[in-house]
Amino acid sequence: MTILENAKKGKRVALVNSVARAERVSPESLLRALRLGKAVIPSNKNRLLKKPCAVGGGTRVKINANIGTSTDKGSLATELRKLEVALRYGADAMMDLSVGGNLSGVRARILENCPVPLGTVPVYEVSVNALRRSNDPLDFSENDIFPVLEKQAQEGVDFFTIHAGINRKSLSALKKSKRVLGIVSRGGALLAAWMAQTGRENPFYAQFDRILDIAYRHDVTLSLGDGLRPGSVLDASDAGQFAELAILGELAKRAYARNVQVMIEGPGHVPLNQVRRNMEMEKKLCHGAPFYVLGPLVTDSAPGYDHITSAIGGCLAAISGADFLCYVTPAEHLRHPSLDDVREGVIAARIAAHAADVSRGLPAALERERNISLARAARDWKKQIAFAIDPVKAAAYRKSSLPSESDVCTMCGKFCSIKMMERCSGKKK
Amino acid sequence: MTILENAKKGKRVALVNSVARAERVSPESLLRALRLGKAVIPSNKNRLLKKPCAVGGGTRVKINANIGTSTDKGSLATELRKLEVALRYGADAMMDLSVGGNLSGVRARILENCPVPLGTVPVYEVSVNALRRSNDPLDFSENDIFPVLEKQAQEGVDFFTIHAGINRKSLSALKKSKRVLGIVSRGGALLAAWMAQTGRENPFYAQFDRILDIAYRHDVTLSLGDGLRPGSVLDASDAGQFAELAILGELAKRAYARNVQVMIEGPGHVPLNQVRRNMEMEKKLCHGAPFYVLGPLVTDSAPGYDHITSAIGGCLAAISGADFLCYVTPAEHLRHPSLDDVREGVIAARIAAHAADVSRGLPAALERERNISLARAARDWKKQIAFAIDPVKAAAYRKSSLPSESDVCTMCGKFCSIKMMERCSGKKK
Repeated sequence: MTILENAKKGKRVALVNSVARAERVSPESLLRALRLGKAVIPSNKNRLLKKPCAVGGGTRVKINANIGTSTDKGSLATELRKLEVALRYGADAMMDLSVGGNLSGVRARILENCPVPLGTVPVYEVSVNALRRSNDPLDFSENDIFPVLEKQAQEGVDFFTIHAGINRKSLSALKKSKRVLGIVSRGGALLAAWMAQTGRENPFYAQFDRILDIAYRHDVTLSLGDGLRPGSVLDASDAGQFAELAILGELAKRAYARNVQVMIEGPGHVPLNQVRRNMEMEKKLCHGAPFYVLGPLVTDSAPGYDHITSAIGGCLAAISGADFLCYVTPAEHLRHPSLDDVREGVIAARIAAHAADVSRGLPAALERERNISLARAARDWKKQIAFAIDPVKAAAYRKSSLPSESDVCTMCGKFCSIKMMERCSGKKK
Repeated sequence: MTILENAKKGKRVALVNSVARAERVSPESLLRALRLGKAVIPSNKNRLLKKPCAVGGGTRVKINANIGTSTDKGSLATELRKLEVALRYGADAMMDLSVGGNLSGVRARILENCPVPLGTVPVYEVSVNALRRSNDPLDFSENDIFPVLEKQAQEGVDFFTIHAGINRKSLSALKKSKRVLGIVSRGGALLAAWMAQTGRENPFYAQFDRILDIAYRHDVTLSLGDGLRPGSVLDASDAGQFAELAILGELAKRAYARNVQVMIEGPGHVPLNQVRRNMEMEKKLCHGAPFYVLGPLVTDSAPGYDHITSAIGGCLAAISGADFLCYVTPAEHLRHPSLDDVREGVIAARIAAHAADVSRGLPAALERERNISLARAARDWKKQIAFAIDPVKAAAYRKSSLPSESDVCTMCGKFCSIKMMERCSGKKK
């Protein structure tokens, strides 16, 4: 029985209860959200997740960090250090997007060290196998796909990104879209190229029931990928993107009926004025399924700073309905991310998620704001630093520039507004 | 005759025409906005501004960078380097907030090197004089204020922040507000403390006509400061803040009637769900005067990253009516900003302003998006880097991690989606 099946029947709710406690929501409301498909708890039955979490259903906005080897950068040790950093700064989930080195071996080590839900994009392994077998990433058949899914599910992967919405129909809608950049999703491009080359329908779409069987047996949550997500703000909200989203909505219904938990992936590059509409479209077309967005980046013009462009879009997305933010690092569009890039990406996503939770009035988020503000009012530097999202950087900044009067900072020095007000209100110091 | 007076009479419109050209708006629309008080062109008649700009009236969102010595950090050379960096990365205006060293001397050198509008907060100099004279920053009288304003206006300062909205009425509203942090504006705290100590009304309010006289004679734009801006998201949109805003609206009317250009300063720390309302309130209470916001920071919990928390808030503010974003650096709440902090702060504000302009559909902003997206589609790394908001960082990232195939990047390597699509669509490479 899957988590969704149990939720529908009100059975084996221990996991739901413990997640609800950690989320500070009532178990009943979380159970109801799970039952309605508005929340998911990604957790493969083959491994014991130390830190499970819920995505959607009014819980805290979650963030995901991607790691993984590329064909150019392949050190497992580096990726494990990235995992550690991402977890330290608050990643709620991780994805292993490796396409370099021994994929199974890399995944095993990551799974071993990952207390939070781990996701993958199985078509990458399918394609890497093809590349190695015949020097062509597209040289695979339908039959090469399902053993990979089965193996990864057995290994304990908690959620799969499945690009099942890219099919003849959505690709034909895309053709009308006159994009500046065509397909920028790796999985989407792989499948579109495979379809063009073979003349066949996307097997992830055509044989979606086989995927559901595997997901059901191992209780893998499906994250329906947006292969046609826009790669430029000028391509946002076009016919191709929304045609795919409508297909994802139909597939989400089938997954739900099969008792497989499902979430939907979303853009991408979107101008700020279209962000809300994108969130509303997803909720409508996909029956309220949790929305997992990659960004959205609100401008294309800031390579080197896409952690910021995506924090802006992600924060607005999250107050408009997005449940899960995939981090974007400063390295986006430029290089495989370094350890520092991962840290900066996680922190920017954490800020966006937290600011959205503050805006949504979540008690834990407001409590955090109160604590740090009170520390500021008291000019209690130790506490202010301890409550910071990144205490290490805050402490280093403070230490680098100590004021002549120890209770202020070097920005205002003798003109500290808080100290001045205290003085005239008769408080000490 | 001031710029506003000429605009009202349709005279001497050469400056308006040249600014309109640079803004890519019609001279008629800019002139109309100036006439209605919906746009300003800060430009002191005593100096020739090399790069004037308009704020408001549907023009590009502008950004301001603050520099200046503090009582703890006083190197003029460092501040001049910050000026250079801020200008290089796109600051449209600068403010000199110095409170350390020889203020007049510092200001002269900054004015000399500043081709864009320069603003100050004259009450700082008044207070620094008091501190030096009698070791008490509050030991000044009404008569000490106006000579400082007159001198700075003669020197060529283009806009003054004047904290005239903090008066008995707004302070009494503040008392009802039960703030976590009281007054966090330096100028606001100075004046509130002065009022508490002397029992007198704020002279910037009580003698506002004298300020208008000086501003009129030298054509200094007034930026009406928000001394009661919230310093915690928990304090946002309270009675104190809006009482002050209403007073600023009345003062703005008086400035406009006196043919003095005026803009309004705004928060501060504001949760995301209150940002739009704050912008709408300003436009309503202040008769459409340009809104100059400091942030808003959408969470208090990220010291070390307030360039990001303010980019999120500033971007949403700008699509909701804010015209002018004051940068916030990563050093905010922690230390006097370094050169790197200034660069990061300017770039984050530039990103927020540009993303807002993209959202608002400004042709020049969309053109930039198109250019960089086309370069990406062509995998033309030189062009992509040249079109970036920070080409230096983009180039360094690229160089630090060169791929084995020169036309892709190390993120996707052999799995570059764009290259894959080209291959199957029959394009070369």
